[in-house]
Amino acid sequence: MDASSLRALIEEVAAGRCPPDDAVRQLRRLPYSDLGFARVDHHRDLRLGMPEAVYGPGKTPEHCAAVVEELLSATDGPVLLTRATEAQVKAVTAGAAALGVGPPAVSGSGDLATVVFRPAPSRAGAVVVVTAGTADLPVATECTAVLGALGFVPTQLTDCGVAGLHRLLAELDTLAMADAIVVIAGMEGALASVVGGLTPAPVIAVPTSTGYGAALEGVTALLAMLSACSSGITVVGIDNGYGAACAIARLLP
Amino acid sequence: MDASSLRALIEEVAAGRCPPDDAVRQLRRLPYSDLGFARVDHHRDLRLGMPEAVYGPGKTPEHCAAVVEELLSATDGPVLLTRATEAQVKAVTAGAAALGVGPPAVSGSGDLATVVFRPAPSRAGAVVVVTAGTADLPVATECTAVLGALGFVPTQLTDCGVAGLHRLLAELDTLAMADAIVVIAGMEGALASVVGGLTPAPVIAVPTSTGYGAALEGVTALLAMLSACSSGITVVGIDNGYGAACAIARLLP
Amino acid sequence: MDASSLRALIEEVAAGRCPPDDAVRQLRRLPYSDLGFARVDHHRDLRLGMPEAVYGPGKTPEHCAAVVEELLSATDGPVLLTRATEAQVKAVTAGAAALGVGPPAVSGSGDLATVVFRPAPSRAGAVVVVTAGTADLPVATECTAVLGALGFVPTQLTDCGVAGLHRLLAELDTLAMADAIVVIAGMEGALASVVGGLTPAPVIAVPTSTGYGAALEGVTALLAMLSACSSGITVVGIDNGYGAACAIARLLP
Amino acid sequence: MDASSLRALIEEVAAGRCPPDDAVRQLRRLPYSDLGFARVDHHRDLRLGMPEAVYGPGKTPEHCAAVVEELLSATDGPVLLTRATEAQVKAVTAGAAALGVGPPAVSGSGDLATVVFRPAPSRAGAVVVVTAGTADLPVATECTAVLGALGFVPTQLTDCGVAGLHRLLAELDTLAMADAIVVIAGMEGALASVVGGLTPAPVIAVPTSTGYGAALEGVTALLAMLSACSSGITVVGIDNGYGAACAIARLLP
Amino acid sequence: MDASSLRALIEEVAAGRCPPDDAVRQLRRLPYSDLGFARVDHHRDLRLGMPEAVYGPGKTPEHCAAVVEELLSATDGPVLLTRATEAQVKAVTAGAAALGVGPPAVSGSGDLATVVFRPAPSRAGAVVVVTAGTADLPVATECTAVLGALGFVPTQLTDCGVAGLHRLLAELDTLAMADAIVVIAGMEGALASVVGGLTPAPVIAVPTSTGYGAALEGVTALLAMLSACSSGITVVGIDNGYGAACAIARLLP
Amino acid sequence: MDASSLRALIEEVAAGRCPPDDAVRQLRRLPYSDLGFARVDHHRDLRLGMPEAVYGPGKTPEHCAAVVEELLSATDGPVLLTRATEAQVKAVTAGAAALGVGPPAVSGSGDLATVVFRPAPSRAGAVVVVTAGTADLPVATECTAVLGALGFVPTQLTDCGVAGLHRLLAELDTLAMADAIVVIAGMEGALASVVGGLTPAPVIAVPTSTGYGAALEGVTALLAMLSACSSGITVVGIDNGYGAACAIARLLP
Amino acid sequence: MDASSLRALIEEVAAGRCPPDDAVRQLRRLPYSDLGFARVDHHRDLRLGMPEAVYGPGKTPEHCAAVVEELLSATDGPVLLTRATEAQVKAVTAGAAALGVGPPAVSGSGDLATVVFRPAPSRAGAVVVVTAGTADLPVATECTAVLGALGFVPTQLTDCGVAGLHRLLAELDTLAMADAIVVIAGMEGALASVVGGLTPAPVIAVPTSTGYGAALEGVTALLAMLSACSSGITVVGIDNGYGAACAIARLLP
Amino acid sequence: MDASSLRALIEEVAAGRCPPDDAVRQLRRLPYSDLGFARVDHHRDLRLGMPEAVYGPGKTPEHCAAVVEELLSATDGPVLLTRATEAQVKAVTAGAAALGVGPPAVSGSGDLATVVFRPAPSRAGAVVVVTAGTADLPVATECTAVLGALGFVPTQLTDCGVAGLHRLLAELDTLAMADAIVVIAGMEGALASVVGGLTPAPVIAVPTSTGYGAALEGVTALLAMLSACSSGITVVGIDNGYGAACAIARLLP
Repeated sequence: MDASSLRALIEEVAAGRCPPDDAVRQLRRLPYSDLGFARVDHHRDLRLGMPEAVYGPGKTPEHCAAVVEELLSATDGPVLLTRATEAQVKAVTAGAAALGVGPPAVSGSGDLATVVFRPAPSRAGAVVVVTAGTADLPVATECTAVLGALGFVPTQLTDCGVAGLHRLLAELDTLAMADAIVVIAGMEGALASVVGGLTPAPVIAVPTSTGYGAALEGVTALLAMLSACSSGITVVGIDNGYGAACAIARLLP
Repeated sequence: MDASSLRALIEEVAAGRCPPDDAVRQLRRLPYSDLGFARVDHHRDLRLGMPEAVYGPGKTPEHCAAVVEELLSATDGPVLLTRATEAQVKAVTAGAAALGVGPPAVSGSGDLATVVFRPAPSRAGAVVVVTAGTADLPVATECTAVLGALGFVPTQLTDCGVAGLHRLLAELDTLAMADAIVVIAGMEGALASVVGGLTPAPVIAVPTSTGYGAALEGVTALLAMLSACSSGITVVGIDNGYGAACAIARLLP
Repeated sequence: MDASSLRALIEEVAAGRCPPDDAVRQLRRLPYSDLGFARVDHHRDLRLGMPEAVYGPGKTPEHCAAVVEELLSATDGPVLLTRATEAQVKAVTAGAAALGVGPPAVSGSGDLATVVFRPAPSRAGAVVVVTAGTADLPVATECTAVLGALGFVPTQLTDCGVAGLHRLLAELDTLAMADAIVVIAGMEGALASVVGGLTPAPVIAVPTSTGYGAALEGVTALLAMLSACSSGITVVGIDNGYGAACAIARLLP
Repeated sequence: MDASSLRALIEEVAAGRCPPDDAVRQLRRLPYSDLGFARVDHHRDLRLGMPEAVYGPGKTPEHCAAVVEELLSATDGPVLLTRATEAQVKAVTAGAAALGVGPPAVSGSGDLATVVFRPAPSRAGAVVVVTAGTADLPVATECTAVLGALGFVPTQLTDCGVAGLHRLLAELDTLAMADAIVVIAGMEGALASVVGGLTPAPVIAVPTSTGYGAALEGVTALLAMLSACSSGITVVGIDNGYGAACAIARLLP
Repeated sequence: MDASSLRALIEEVAAGRCPPDDAVRQLRRLPYSDLGFARVDHHRDLRLGMPEAVYGPGKTPEHCAAVVEELLSATDGPVLLTRATEAQVKAVTAGAAALGVGPPAVSGSGDLATVVFRPAPSRAGAVVVVTAGTADLPVATECTAVLGALGFVPTQLTDCGVAGLHRLLAELDTLAMADAIVVIAGMEGALASVVGGLTPAPVIAVPTSTGYGAALEGVTALLAMLSACSSGITVVGIDNGYGAACAIARLLP
Repeated sequence: MDASSLRALIEEVAAGRCPPDDAVRQLRRLPYSDLGFARVDHHRDLRLGMPEAVYGPGKTPEHCAAVVEELLSATDGPVLLTRATEAQVKAVTAGAAALGVGPPAVSGSGDLATVVFRPAPSRAGAVVVVTAGTADLPVATECTAVLGALGFVPTQLTDCGVAGLHRLLAELDTLAMADAIVVIAGMEGALASVVGGLTPAPVIAVPTSTGYGAALEGVTALLAMLSACSSGITVVGIDNGYGAACAIARLLP
Repeated sequence: MDASSLRALIEEVAAGRCPPDDAVRQLRRLPYSDLGFARVDHHRDLRLGMPEAVYGPGKTPEHCAAVVEELLSATDGPVLLTRATEAQVKAVTAGAAALGVGPPAVSGSGDLATVVFRPAPSRAGAVVVVTAGTADLPVATECTAVLGALGFVPTQLTDCGVAGLHRLLAELDTLAMADAIVVIAGMEGALASVVGGLTPAPVIAVPTSTGYGAALEGVTALLAMLSACSSGITVVGIDNGYGAACAIARLLP
Repeated sequence: MDASSLRALIEEVAAGRCPPDDAVRQLRRLPYSDLGFARVDHHRDLRLGMPEAVYGPGKTPEHCAAVVEELLSATDGPVLLTRATEAQVKAVTAGAAALGVGPPAVSGSGDLATVVFRPAPSRAGAVVVVTAGTADLPVATECTAVLGALGFVPTQLTDCGVAGLHRLLAELDTLAMADAIVVIAGMEGALASVVGGLTPAPVIAVPTSTGYGAALEGVTALLAMLSACSSGITVVGIDNGYGAACAIARLLP
């Protein structure tokens, strides 16, 4: 129920065509219908900001295809499948084809692919995605693919870890022009602190599970980023490239 | 806005006394008013089930008194202040007196008192609160005080730890007649497993921060209770005697 | 030895048919025979409350079949095999057939099946099982299968996570009519807090290992549920759908 | 050395007034002078975005006063002292007075005060600071004081925890109009997930050390917020109200 | 009820002096009476093996005195109060005097004293208590005081940490003659591994909370001792000198 | 160099047949030769107490065979291979056959077998190995196999978990006659506390990695056993059946 | 840009051949060019101290080959591939051959090989690598292979764990002559403490993930080494044989 | 017994003045006497490398004075008291005066002072101690005081945290000339990674407990430093400035 159908109902009552009892019964459901309102608003907002996304792991290819098809039918914005296997990619591609939706953009290797149908139209905002090492690339790839689905055209700076500081400093101009920066790093995650000290732009840090032993599957980078001595850095979950892209969509509307 | 005022509004519209536009404006707020409905319902349920409670730590005596006075004025059910200092007890007692509410029941020592105003009328349900050792008594005292505020008259079995199993087994009849059992234990928390194996009644386990070193401030007991080999035991947070009493109120309505 | 066989023995002694020495020898075992009493009572209670259950992992198909057959022979209530592989399912089905017991109900996929022989007769009590996301379904399936074995007919509400609050609020009526609610959620487990704030019914929270990185294999959801700001929520172990069902059986006798 | 003084030096050389050797010596330091450039730029950016701030704990009142005086002299933007004791507040106030700087705004109680000298001029951007409970207020106070120093006029919504969802839903309009939202919550931190699901605005979550036992001094809320099922939420460190304010400054420039 | 009173009851029935119904009623309680048997046996064993002990922390001096007096009256073996404050020591000493029990032996400083009434008579068994550093002495003192209460005359080797291996090796003869060895060490707890490699005697390792930072309040030593490369070392809880002494009593009966 | 060769050397010097310089050079090595003494003594002790053992994991079958053959040649006591794969079992059996040593006793399934060559002659001491559940059997099997290699004939009580206390209480006599008890339990490890409360014998607790979720791969049982409320229980590492057997050998010499 | 080209530029300006604007533009880049200076210096230092190294895991054989080839072309010092699979070894060997670089030295088994091209010329410095057990050998092999690539000829002492102290003490002379010692140990890592107490040389401790259960995948050894009672021991990450070798290169230049 | 007294003994035997039996008895003790040798050697090494040090916490002033006096009497090298209270400083100063030893150098505030008697003569080696923030100064002060006691004259660079990278880069020359660098940082500890990437010198990282919340009392910095992406960095325990100084003494002999 949206604002106009609410008015319609009230007018029915005013016109004596709807008995008060019936209206009460309908309106009693209103909190939820009203939150149905909210749902519609929410959806509109989501379409502007965040794509509909399906998380692949633990779903059968058939399950993935069904959900993707439903989203492709019910909305007309971008639809994503993240962390998809090759079989899942095949299934959703076929399912989409049956709906007349062309083949998706598939990023990443077959066992960790991000699949994008109907990417959003181009959108303002200079987003830079910086990674510390080549091992962080899968997370960065997920992040840039989702950013692309959202309409951004991110600049990707790879292998800028602080062990060779000059690699990062050579890109100071790129950092300086960014409206928002995603820093993706594993091991000790120091790159976030350093980038945060070089720019006043929003910095979203993504700890990765890169590294072994004391890197504790990303927990070390996570804690380090949360404790960064540069003020105002914010952090998303370990390996959560998707979440970082969504955070960008929130802050560059 | 409750069901009858909703009907009143609709009838105003039906009678032509309220223009549809006004009604829409009011009803547009309905989700929240309706959740105001829900609030009223919720409050009613809460009055039947859980007391209004104020958590003392971190509040000044004045702050405590103000919140308690508000609750005493706005509702007519039981009002609690938990983990209160002596100064807080004094402040709320004085504040209540100013409202004409008599002195509360105060359980526990002055620096960890549970304060109960207007306890609920007596209520069916045999609740047994079992503690492993004397060090668990402060948590048990909080639990029984809150149970009392809710109208229960719990039986308290103290010092029944499994190191001397006969102490517990001597109380098998008491356990057998219980409608619900709260097991309060620190250290390794084994009492929950043993009680759970002796009775089909609901068992709510409260880990306490009793013990030192490897007891890890209650984390060991918590993990042990969550891993209990007796099926169907449920657990609340460390030292959370208040929460266990509320859980009892949920399951013995 | 139950109450009547105890009386029989005493009467044998009274009648001079059993020499005191023999009775002493038998009765000396009484504590344990008496706990044999307890065992019988316990079993009766268990039959009313909790099914005999075998945990599949780490057992060979033959081992599973042997234990299941013993339980099927020794009792006449429900018998469960949880987290069973396809081979285990086959083995216990064949073993049961040899005893003249018909094929079990098998829920879940082949590698995480819950197998139920001789479900209990239907039983009162409106149980609602709410899940936050589709990834929590395997745990929910285990829970509802065990509830079914116990005689309950649970209502399952899926995909009600708090990220889209309207999905949950649309089911307020279902929640309001529940005698007990199982909330199954991974990631941050916030659904338990929200449900706990909407209903006075007992809420049993099951953290799941859904999520990655900072979800810490369910530890995050576990801690969050134990720290829920809604009072009186109780928690079982991570992914422990079976335990939640048993807890329901304890509180809805 | 800034761009114009660099040009001046070069022109001196071109004019023969500065011997090449001298210029080389000066320019040899240029990487650092140049980073001195960057420092100046950085400072300007910081003045626009983040205030100069001194962290009180572990510093003597004299030490605090000295650093604050230096910052007041060297810059003309806002200067902050966070988590200050009463003695520290006194010392910096006196020190500032000696420099002719008027008394600072002091927020919070004496043992956890945020002290602001020369707040920035008013600045666009609707920032909403939502707290779950009254125990989270000290962190919220630090956050709003720092936001105020930065020129923001934040709206503060207190006590909106998800245990009573209607309290939050009653403020949907306020949330909907926000350019950015800071969610401050302890215990299980579920408020961040719920707010994140209700608005497309950037949500910065601050876990607090509120709660006891299983709340693990804020670690539970931290992990829960990082695992939030609502996409695109970002997180700062435990109790870091200052950091959240700085993050707002980064994203609402 | 012990074996002879059980026989007496049975004979009463056989003689027709006790109606079967009465006997059933009495015997029905037998499991617990029988475990009352066990209690008596247990107590006797405990008197031979482990002293009655009261844990001081969290108890008022009056509470301590009451429990100690009860134990002094009910038994005639040793009675201990561990981790006692000066006020607690005074209270129990006065209480005991009122019962005609002379002043206890008090070991350790006033705020961590072990108090022993009526130590057991001397007992065979060469026990060696080795400590790594002087900071481990309080735990060692508790251990040797409890050993003394149990009748042992332990040899104490202090400051034998592995950083100066010769200090330990100089005591090889003492170690070789030991019937059991308690190794008390904090920091990395390596002393347990080294002692375990030098002797076939039972080695009970006590991790202490000595050390800072990465010693994690004793957790590091605990984990290290549990992972010791020398086979057959067993471990008690952190700082648990009392527990180690009790373990000695179990294995040197 | 042993005592007699030391004497021989000294006599050589006394007889003038060995120049002092040579003796000094030889004796300078004495600390290590002397610790060679210790090595011999140590070995003798080890033969009496602990078998030579090879830990299978991470070694190739050839490597295992080589080490086992060396031990079979160099000593004449028992030799063990623990946690052996089928291929390792085959390799060491063949290698031993080549040395004329007959086939070993192999316990456990092929992928977690304990292999014993030349078990020690029978040895006094009643050892009871109690397990909580069938899932703990692999650890128990390792423990009893090693005990057997050491000459013990342990009694094994299986499936005595505290969820069905009667199962344990039915074995009170067996426990009472034990000289030492090994308690093997996963999940919450409560069995150790209960057994420790029923007997004054030494109790060695082995936490197992049985259980899932909050059982934390055995850490929960480990912490619980270390925090057991029954005094004097000692603990070995998670799943360390071998270590428990060695600890028995230390205390029942 | 190095010092002489900087002078050249300045002289161009002084001579009027370079307009000030152009110089400003070039010099504005100087911080990064200057850090390009640093890069060159850094590289030279690295060539003297640490080899160019590629971390194998997560890279395809083709990726490995490409990076190795680039390094072989761009530098003329040693190039390493660590933790390489057999396929990776093949690919880089072939790739190098195509560049005319001979086959590398390959250490360790096929699935954890260290591959060294063009090892550095021999270098002074007696390095001893001590391991506690045979299970630590893979880490030791990586360490010695990298040391070899750096020009060191390390002495390897294997199986010197403290459970048999004489094995280590027999090597006191070797330890005494070392310029630096790497201690590699898992389980409780006590070897580092003991070695640190026996020698004044620098001791670099490498915790390994050897052991199970309470060894916590190397965390126990890590914490123990950081808490070592012998002063001045330093530690690298778990299983980080490569890092230890690099640390040696830093301190024995 | 040292080398010459060993020779004397042997010559006594050779001369027939010492019966072989007596010599055997004396030499049988040799391993320990010989390790007494080692002790002497060790002590000499220690005197060259590491000072005798007493750790203040947990010791009474009298205890401190006694140990310090013993060390001052028994040796003639430097003697340290670390983490001393004002009372401890007074006591040891008085005690030393009684021995004719002049007043010590006292660094740091009264409640965390490092006290140095008889510092070692000046010693080669350029040591740089870099700290990230002013809060790290107490650890740095301890480190430099111990370095001073050892004869080093360290250069201290304070407040060089990576949030303002230019502060560190301005000191590149100082870093370049260092023979060894100690990096002291809390929070996320990123400074170690950055310094490690700028210099080939040995870098010893000291994590500090600076920071709050997610800094986890130094654990975050510790883990980050162990996971540093710059190769060859080594780490000591949290806040262990003393240990870092000793590590320097090991590597700059």
